[in-house]
Amino acid sequence: MKLRELAVAIGGELVGDGEVVVTSVTEVGRAVPGALVMVREAHLLSLAEASTASALLLSQDLRAMVKPAVRVKDARLALARAIALLYPAPPAPPGVHPTAVIGGQTIVGTGGFVGPYVVIGEGSRISDGVTIMAGCVLGRQVTVGEGTVIYPRVAVYDRTEIGRRVILHSGAVVGSDGFGYAVSAGEHVKIPHIGRVVIEDDVEIGANTTIDRATLGETRIGAGTKIDNLVQVAHNVTVGRGVVIVAQCGIAGSVIIGDGAVLAGQIGVKDHVHIGARATILAKSAVTKDVPEGAVFSGNPARPHREGLKQQAALHRMLHTDSPPRHRNAG
Amino acid sequence: MKLRELAVAIGGELVGDGEVVVTSVTEVGRAVPGALVMVREAHLLSLAEASTASALLLSQDLRAMVKPAVRVKDARLALARAIALLYPAPPAPPGVHPTAVIGGQTIVGTGGFVGPYVVIGEGSRISDGVTIMAGCVLGRQVTVGEGTVIYPRVAVYDRTEIGRRVILHSGAVVGSDGFGYAVSAGEHVKIPHIGRVVIEDDVEIGANTTIDRATLGETRIGAGTKIDNLVQVAHNVTVGRGVVIVAQCGIAGSVIIGDGAVLAGQIGVKDHVHIGARATILAKSAVTKDVPEGAVFSGNPARPHREGLKQQAALHRMLHTDSPPRHRNAG
Amino acid sequence: MKLRELAVAIGGELVGDGEVVVTSVTEVGRAVPGALVMVREAHLLSLAEASTASALLLSQDLRAMVKPAVRVKDARLALARAIALLYPAPPAPPGVHPTAVIGGQTIVGTGGFVGPYVVIGEGSRISDGVTIMAGCVLGRQVTVGEGTVIYPRVAVYDRTEIGRRVILHSGAVVGSDGFGYAVSAGEHVKIPHIGRVVIEDDVEIGANTTIDRATLGETRIGAGTKIDNLVQVAHNVTVGRGVVIVAQCGIAGSVIIGDGAVLAGQIGVKDHVHIGARATILAKSAVTKDVPEGAVFSGNPARPHREGLKQQAALHRMLHTDSPPRHRNAG
Repeated sequence: MKLRELAVAIGGELVGDGEVVVTSVTEVGRAVPGALVMVREAHLLSLAEASTASALLLSQDLRAMVKPAVRVKDARLALARAIALLYPAPPAPPGVHPTAVIGGQTIVGTGGFVGPYVVIGEGSRISDGVTIMAGCVLGRQVTVGEGTVIYPRVAVYDRTEIGRRVILHSGAVVGSDGFGYAVSAGEHVKIPHIGRVVIEDDVEIGANTTIDRATLGETRIGAGTKIDNLVQVAHNVTVGRGVVIVAQCGIAGSVIIGDGAVLAGQIGVKDHVHIGARATILAKSAVTKDVPEGAVFSGNPARPHREGLKQQAALHRMLHTDSPPRHRNAG
Repeated sequence: MKLRELAVAIGGELVGDGEVVVTSVTEVGRAVPGALVMVREAHLLSLAEASTASALLLSQDLRAMVKPAVRVKDARLALARAIALLYPAPPAPPGVHPTAVIGGQTIVGTGGFVGPYVVIGEGSRISDGVTIMAGCVLGRQVTVGEGTVIYPRVAVYDRTEIGRRVILHSGAVVGSDGFGYAVSAGEHVKIPHIGRVVIEDDVEIGANTTIDRATLGETRIGAGTKIDNLVQVAHNVTVGRGVVIVAQCGIAGSVIIGDGAVLAGQIGVKDHVHIGARATILAKSAVTKDVPEGAVFSGNPARPHREGLKQQAALHRMLHTDSPPRHRNAG
Repeated sequence: MKLRELAVAIGGELVGDGEVVVTSVTEVGRAVPGALVMVREAHLLSLAEASTASALLLSQDLRAMVKPAVRVKDARLALARAIALLYPAPPAPPGVHPTAVIGGQTIVGTGGFVGPYVVIGEGSRISDGVTIMAGCVLGRQVTVGEGTVIYPRVAVYDRTEIGRRVILHSGAVVGSDGFGYAVSAGEHVKIPHIGRVVIEDDVEIGANTTIDRATLGETRIGAGTKIDNLVQVAHNVTVGRGVVIVAQCGIAGSVIIGDGAVLAGQIGVKDHVHIGARATILAKSAVTKDVPEGAVFSGNPARPHREGLKQQAALHRMLHTDSPPRHRNAG
């Protein structure tokens, strides 16, 4: 692809020779002829200029002296677009592999792929253009929307509803029973979970993440939400739209997370807590109470991040002052 | 089912029209005609009374004015029973799917189900009425007791012993090697793990949870214990009877957990620690020392919860007092 | 095996009757005739001597009075060797199971095993003596080195490179997309991940652990590194040689971990942090800044462990002193 064409396609400003042909995208340290290299930090520019890369993808505030370049407002966004252009996903062979076991009254749309040893239960509905890779097991009455991609070895329990353009990574389990028991005569009696999981459009779910079905109603993951690997979402949780949940978070039962909230890694959220829209929770926090819209919380228990910093600073002063103020005052 | 019959079956007190027919169980917000709705909190009662639900399932301390109701001592227990009555589990088609690969000298009992693409190694013994869903892989010399249900894509390593009425959720791995190495000339030499895992009766194990085999003896999960999703149980751990372990806990090697203990989410327990019977550990704690029977521990490192609260309160006072006591005293 | 032969094979000093025949290795509490029992702690020696075990494996500082014994410098290393001698791994039936689905231009070496329902994509290269157990799914252009063992239900994405004598436990996912998005008009736009994962020789990866592919370059796990269960390794991470990572750690994007570092359980490491060679991080820490070579860090945020202990002690004194020093000084 000519750099000139790439610049137009990703909406950037061409600087230098637009006839240069770009065939790959790579890191500065792995540059080869034909490669486009992204540079967002000024101190890496000279390294990139000195490399064998054919062209640079630069943040708007950078300017190349030697190599042809495309300057863009948002380099990460431009990178996403450039990769999509230069590395079209290899098409899965269309069709249903002869080893797939598909239950009665299940409909599989056209233009998609159902891989070897996939098992789909009865009464399910797989839309057009869906990719279900090898070894996946989908239960009864599952629905999957157009363009969704399910990587190998995903398990989806009965009656789960999955939207369009969803990505489920390997090992994800969607719709397992919630962890709910009644106690009778000192024993734990299982509460059968007859609810379900609904995953809206454009959601991505990481490898080995688990999402439990609701006791009665539904566990819902809002449109455009991205969930990383090894996250636990318990029964009856409602995750809003455009939420980001980083790896190994645990969201307890009936939690509500507002649109656009961001949860960093390894956070725990107590059951029934409400995290407001656009709130940010820092890594490893334990959220035990409601978090207001737009707030930044951290710590265990989580509280406003500024308060936590202030308290830490105060504690630090108190513990590390050789001649503490109290002596001077008291004297 | 008539409400009168349901009341008898779940052991509750009928109040109002016992001839009302109940066909589903749901949440207040999803009520439809025919639905039974559980209400445990007084402030939700008017909402439930105003809904289109046909009948209410009430805690003993609540009293309906409009709708027929069943009043019960323990609403969650009654809910479990009502769901079990109104939603009998769909029977798995009995028999062994023709694609199942079953090793020599392995016996599969009657009345159960072995799903598509299940693989069972040699010399295993699957009792009557066991359900093993699609894509599960069980090793050699595995035993599975009557009535156990294994959801899709569970992996069970060689020589694991699984009791009766156990539930294993998708993605669970039982019997993987413990994380044990000797060091020789600066390299880690694997200690082969020749022990096994024993899971007693009525245990439930969550999705993508991992339970390692013992080095020599056994890792044991006691009868009636319930383990949530994404929990790690290391080699040689002994979990007692009726223990509850919430999602994402990590139990290190050779830990002993007494009967009836409760571990909330994301707890870590150090190797060789002994947690006493009926102890409660609060979420995200790090248990580094033994915990006495019946104690409530929290924090990192975990200590008696009351002590932790006191210390936090003292610290809070010290940091937030404008005119601290020391000045007044010293003056 | 005669104790005399075993002593020679594991490099220990025989004390007592070398003609005793040893057929198993077990724990003190499970001793049976024919068993070799390891004792490393003096207080367990009398128990072992009184057991029905046939012989003891003793740390050099211990001396048996009754039973024949092998004394060794490193009992754990000797144990590893003794188990390997007495419990040779049962050979997997060699060959490729007829149900395995292997893509075009994929080469499978000799002397190995490809189990039932394994799926391998096109253009992959499986070396000699590789064991791939039931239900594994390997993508396109994957390479696997000699002697590697892949347990049931592992998923390996396209273009992953796996070295020699690697062990991958059940449910591990290698090569899933990193969690990387650009933001456009308030929506998260996926950055396609065209990098890969490289796992060097002699690595062991635990059950249900996830290792993400790099955005552009590679995520690399160095030779001899051991990773426990349920660990998350994000995109572009570089783990050195001989590193130990205990269960449920989460390593964020682009982290570099030096050779021989040890990370205890449930640690989180912030993106782009550099952990120096031979550093030790204690359990549940949150590593937010670089850690020097050989340092011991703990806490959230992680800092030198000694500092943390000092501060905790100071805080404890401050909160628990009835008549605090400041009063005496000020008076």
